[in-house]
Amino acid sequence: MTIVLYELVGAEETTRFSPFCWRARLALEHKGLAFETVPIRFSDKALLTFSGQDKVPVIKDGDKVVSDSWEIANYLEDTYPDRPTLFPDGDGRSLTRFVTNWVDTALHPILAPLLTPITLERIAECDRAYFRESREQRLGKRLEELSPGEELVVRNLRTALAPLNWTLSASPFLAGDAPGYADIALMGSLMWVRSLSAIRYLTPDDPAYAWREGFLRRLGADSARLFGYDWS
Amino acid sequence: MTIVLYELVGAEETTRFSPFCWRARLALEHKGLAFETVPIRFSDKALLTFSGQDKVPVIKDGDKVVSDSWEIANYLEDTYPDRPTLFPDGDGRSLTRFVTNWVDTALHPILAPLLTPITLERIAECDRAYFRESREQRLGKRLEELSPGEELVVRNLRTALAPLNWTLSASPFLAGDAPGYADIALMGSLMWVRSLSAIRYLTPDDPAYAWREGFLRRLGADSARLFGYDWS
Repeated sequence: MTIVLYELVGAEETTRFSPFCWRARLALEHKGLAFETVPIRFSDKALLTFSGQDKVPVIKDGDKVVSDSWEIANYLEDTYPDRPTLFPDGDGRSLTRFVTNWVDTALHPILAPLLTPITLERIAECDRAYFRESREQRLGKRLEELSPGEELVVRNLRTALAPLNWTLSASPFLAGDAPGYADIALMGSLMWVRSLSAIRYLTPDDPAYAWREGFLRRLGADSARLFGYDWS
Repeated sequence: MTIVLYELVGAEETTRFSPFCWRARLALEHKGLAFETVPIRFSDKALLTFSGQDKVPVIKDGDKVVSDSWEIANYLEDTYPDRPTLFPDGDGRSLTRFVTNWVDTALHPILAPLLTPITLERIAECDRAYFRESREQRLGKRLEELSPGEELVVRNLRTALAPLNWTLSASPFLAGDAPGYADIALMGSLMWVRSLSAIRYLTPDDPAYAWREGFLRRLGADSARLFGYDWS
């Protein structure tokens, strides 16, 4: 039976802009599944009543109705496992690399202006000239001109950490049911923060808070000593 | 034989702040491998000559020398496959979820101020009151007050896309050797951009440029028609 995709359209039926509907459409194409679409305008929400909610995309596959693009992807994968997979990264190495690249490019630029001047104080006297020169070149500023203010750093960091909190609200670790290098790569940067600063950027109701606590409890004895974590 | 980890330290040997050294240390702990550390200060770079470069972390495992935290993670995984894995996400579902959450929280807030007012023009007349009200509530502003300027959007988007370009410089797809839902989720949002705007945010020398072109060429006929892509 042909799957039906309910898809948002503009005034023109060919205007299809919703990123989430595109995800559902591209996932269907990826699986090589035949589908037809029902164009939905915002004012057509009543046509979605059968789905128990009012957002597109929705797919109808025989009697089965699925809404939410992520749920649709999971449904298609689980229902049609013999078709080209939507989750092909065998050992997660490429996706893990994406996470480490995200840490380096999205979090480090927020943290460096705060932590670099503190680092200068904490390194050996004989290291300071080199450190200052290399970091000022990298950051394009004199270290004394870096004064981001902890409040701004915390706000930007919390915003940037949104994909972490969203992911951990549904999974115990970034890597799934067990910790992996994606978790380690991020934790490395949180150790960097903690080793130099006392800023609080997670609250106990953030999913990442419990994840971080669990990680600290599992630290090896030597790491725990370096970190100063009371893991007794 | 015990692995040796060369690790950055501050004036105090217990001050260990480098996020990349923490990655190597935590990866070794994760694998349950015995290791000892050699503290390295910035001025000790000469001690790293044996590694053919001058950055920490470096590990020495018997005769084998590996630098760069990502290379170290891959080396440990490939050399000690029977130890707890660093890349456990069987089908990449959890890591894929992270990528979709990154798209939604890091890219969409940059795109929405540009694309939302354009959307208003392109949707059916009868949809506009609902659309305006719901989007103004979501964005906390009147749509007329959203005027981010294409130049700023492009600049912010290029910055935010850094983990994509970094990852695609080493892998044909986010999901590895074949496209997966992580690629689809991002592509969905790039279709959103292209369906409403002609901004150019990738240049031909960005790794993401060829990735996107390849994706467009593989679009199904119906999607290609909607997209207006000349795929002949």
